[in-house]
Amino acid sequence: MNQWQSHPLLLASGSPRRKELLEQAGFQFRVGQTDVDETLPEKMPVREAAEFLAIRKGKAALDLALKGEIILAADSVVILDDLILDKPGTRDQAYQHLMQLADRSHEVMSGICLLYENLFWSDVARTVVHFGPISPEEAWWYIDHGQPYDKAGGYGIQEWIGLCKVTRIEGNYSTVLGLPVHLVYTALQEFPNWSKTDQG
Amino acid sequence: MNQWQSHPLLLASGSPRRKELLEQAGFQFRVGQTDVDETLPEKMPVREAAEFLAIRKGKAALDLALKGEIILAADSVVILDDLILDKPGTRDQAYQHLMQLADRSHEVMSGICLLYENLFWSDVARTVVHFGPISPEEAWWYIDHGQPYDKAGGYGIQEWIGLCKVTRIEGNYSTVLGLPVHLVYTALQEFPNWSKTDQG
Repeated sequence: MNQWQSHPLLLASGSPRRKELLEQAGFQFRVGQTDVDETLPEKMPVREAAEFLAIRKGKAALDLALKGEIILAADSVVILDDLILDKPGTRDQAYQHLMQLADRSHEVMSGICLLYENLFWSDVARTVVHFGPISPEEAWWYIDHGQPYDKAGGYGIQEWIGLCKVTRIEGNYSTVLGLPVHLVYTALQEFPNWSKTDQG
Repeated sequence: MNQWQSHPLLLASGSPRRKELLEQAGFQFRVGQTDVDETLPEKMPVREAAEFLAIRKGKAALDLALKGEIILAADSVVILDDLILDKPGTRDQAYQHLMQLADRSHEVMSGICLLYENLFWSDVARTVVHFGPISPEEAWWYIDHGQPYDKAGGYGIQEWIGLCKVTRIEGNYSTVLGLPVHLVYTALQEFPNWSKTDQG
């Protein structure tokens, strides 16, 4: 256990990128995934969605945690013109997503939720991502050689499309990868001075 | 060979991070390192240093390139208050660096140089990096568990210190890692419409 981490984490997410980020930062954790309905309440503002879904995911993992473990859940949304750009379902949809993102900026918001017994913490981070122009050939190249389908917005910033076509970001890089690690660290520094849950 | 890359690269750098970035983006390349004097001309403006040293490194690799290979060299400098913050030589120097970087912003500039026969291309990118507060305990934790010594400025943005203590960046992430991949891609798209070298 690291001296700055008093409790092991249960990462309630199947995302390989979130797992890799926690590993890179040296956190002690194990993975335990749950299935969560990601439908949003009808009138929810798009910029509240990531934190809302992170909390829902965290609560859904309550039964998975072993004694002493802190649950960590996260959710990311890509926002373009005040609308959420989901994971693409088809090849054509992946292409439409990239054409919409090309040559302009969009937002990535990543929410986190940490739960421990009757205590919880949640927070959200926002990063602006700027894409340069993307030609049809480049878009199809990425769709056929990359992994657009499992990602909010339909692109991976750590893949070819991100490395070669994202010109700049404003905000935290790990937020774009799906887990704002600096916020997780801050939350753990504040533990156990967290909010109390109702069910406590 | 990728359809967007007409010639293989010779990466003239021993940096494992540059190698990893090129791999992640799917470039065809091999590594060939040279030793280069990194002393700067006395009156060189600090913001010209990265591109200047990238060009020097590229020229030093001319003899290493095989027929058909494009040489790619790069250099990064960390700039704080108009001064270059070098790689720390000692544990105490690593600590001083982190204390100087804490709770404020600095610049990372990464230059690239590409050479092919009598043609060349060079460019430079700049990213602003913001650190949150760093306690003495956190600084020593990183120095003793991380790898500050082989890095300009004495920190790795992909390590614990970067993931947990960098709050935001403005610019390209790969620039901070030492190789602005988007600029390399742009250079290759422009090939062979590059400048002519004198020795051509």
